[in-house]
Amino acid sequence: MRIALLGGTGDIGEGLALRFARDTDHEILIGSRDPEKARDAVESYEAELDDRGHEPTIKGFGNEMAADRADIVVLSVPPYYAGDTVEAIEDVLDEETILVTPAVGMNGDEDGMHYHPPGVGSVSELVAQRAPDGVPVVGAYHNLAAGKLADLDVEFDLDTLIVGDDSAANETIRTLTNEIDGLRALEAGPLANAAEVESVTPLVINIATYNDEMHDVGVKWI
Amino acid sequence: MRIALLGGTGDIGEGLALRFARDTDHEILIGSRDPEKARDAVESYEAELDDRGHEPTIKGFGNEMAADRADIVVLSVPPYYAGDTVEAIEDVLDEETILVTPAVGMNGDEDGMHYHPPGVGSVSELVAQRAPDGVPVVGAYHNLAAGKLADLDVEFDLDTLIVGDDSAANETIRTLTNEIDGLRALEAGPLANAAEVESVTPLVINIATYNDEMHDVGVKWI
Repeated sequence: MRIALLGGTGDIGEGLALRFARDTDHEILIGSRDPEKARDAVESYEAELDDRGHEPTIKGFGNEMAADRADIVVLSVPPYYAGDTVEAIEDVLDEETILVTPAVGMNGDEDGMHYHPPGVGSVSELVAQRAPDGVPVVGAYHNLAAGKLADLDVEFDLDTLIVGDDSAANETIRTLTNEIDGLRALEAGPLANAAEVESVTPLVINIATYNDEMHDVGVKWI
Repeated sequence: MRIALLGGTGDIGEGLALRFARDTDHEILIGSRDPEKARDAVESYEAELDDRGHEPTIKGFGNEMAADRADIVVLSVPPYYAGDTVEAIEDVLDEETILVTPAVGMNGDEDGMHYHPPGVGSVSELVAQRAPDGVPVVGAYHNLAAGKLADLDVEFDLDTLIVGDDSAANETIRTLTNEIDGLRALEAGPLANAAEVESVTPLVINIATYNDEMHDVGVKWI
């Protein structure tokens, strides 16, 4: 399959690109609003993978062109850009393309990070609302610490949760996710259950803040 | 120390009573609105522990009498009784008594369970608001599956998160919690961060619902 990581020059995009490229045979497309920035990122990801003896196929494009070529489009953009990014690529989305959203709305104060969803209930539901009819939307990769994700020296033993209303799309993303070494995808139900999944992201940041020995906190459901 | 489990005849109360009694030297007091019910529960908990070669000290009382005798009062009651239970025992609470709240507001629909906090933001903050001034309030034990907790054959390797505004009280509960075999307490900050902790409870129920092989789901932060 071809996997486009829009906003793929950011931290979650980088980690997903490196791990998908290292651990799977899928073709990775990096998307950015600035195609030049996407190609620079590709160069750096390929160099890092090459150093480790991998020869992945990664390509860089503008967001729309990356999405147009992909079977799976991951919106690894900040939450306040998620809706606009969907609209910017809507002409190239169809029922065969799975839209994956890892973004989480949060705000911070002196106590810590707090879950701050959009009015529709969650970023996942916002993306579904803004996506063209029939395009399957899956929430995933919310609670993966970007630092650990992008550091290929870190061996994972982590879970990520999947929410979505299209069970075939959920299954595709679950299978794909399980191809990353040490990452296990579990299902958490339809998009209506996304808020409880997304709100784990501010929580893992708070746990890292308030426990000296913990950094880049991830989660395992047992 | 003396630990009162109010609503200690319910499922979370039962599990905490059995594990505190088995794994620690603290004196366990079971509280119920009906003292007779509390004493019946004590009899059954003692029988179960006796079968396993333990001779714990557990006593049963009405809620107020249990709270009056205790250093730590755990409000293991349904969330909609938490505030009223605090008011029912307020005359016997003081700055030396730590009030611990594990309750979570949830509602369910055909999709799954959803976090449904009271208007003040979380049950933990509601309890703090209803408690007399100066009584330290700690949120803990929210995300422990009652079934696993009360089944002493299940060996734990689980985490529970602590929130609270009084760092000495947090530390007391953290230390106490770590005395339970296989249970690790981590801090998640002040009471203002309670919502993100409480909302993990509907999530673990959803994970159990949507993944065939998983039951009584718990969590490990890594």
